[in-house]
Amino acid sequence: MFKVKVYVTLRESVLDPQGTAVKSSLHSMNYNEVADVRIGKYMELTIEKTERDIEEVVNELCTRLLANPVIEDYRYEIEESVVQ
Amino acid sequence: MFKVKVYVTLRESVLDPQGTAVKSSLHSMNYNEVADVRIGKYMELTIEKTERDIEEVVNELCTRLLANPVIEDYRYEIEESVVQ
Repeated sequence: MFKVKVYVTLRESVLDPQGTAVKSSLHSMNYNEVADVRIGKYMELTIEKTERDIEEVVNELCTRLLANPVIEDYRYEIEESVVQ
Repeated sequence: MFKVKVYVTLRESVLDPQGTAVKSSLHSMNYNEVADVRIGKYMELTIEKTERDIEEVVNELCTRLLANPVIEDYRYEIEESVVQ
C-alpha cells in the first residue's frame, strides 16, 4: 500500500479570488500582518500496489482528474506503508 | 516575512463525501487500485514580522478562521524568508 499526499496549487500567474477573500476576512479581524494568502487543495490517497510504477499512476491521476494542468501545479509525496 | 504553509484535514471520524466522490470517479476511470481518498485544504500565507510570536499568530488564525476545530485538524510549517 502507498500513502500519497498530493498538493495542488494555482499557478503564480493565476488570480486566486478565494485567497483574496480569506485575506480580506483576516484583515477585518485585525490581522493586518497577513500580506498574502493563496489557497490550494490537499489530498491523501491510499493506493494499492500494482504492477505499474506508482509515480506513473500518481502523475496520471493528477493530470487526468485531481489537478487542472492549465491553471494548476501539483506536487506529491509517496510513502510506502507495510501492512501486517 | 514568514512563509506559512497550513494543511487542514477532516478528522478521521468525520465522513468525507468529497473524497468519496473523487474515489468513485477514479474507479469509473478504472483506477481500482485507489483504496481511499481524503480531501483537505492547503493554504500558503505570507505574514509580516510583528512583535507577536509567529506560532501564536498562526494558531489563532487557524482556530479562528482557517479551520473548524470541531471537525478539522490542522498542521503548519513556518519558514522565515529574508527579504533583500
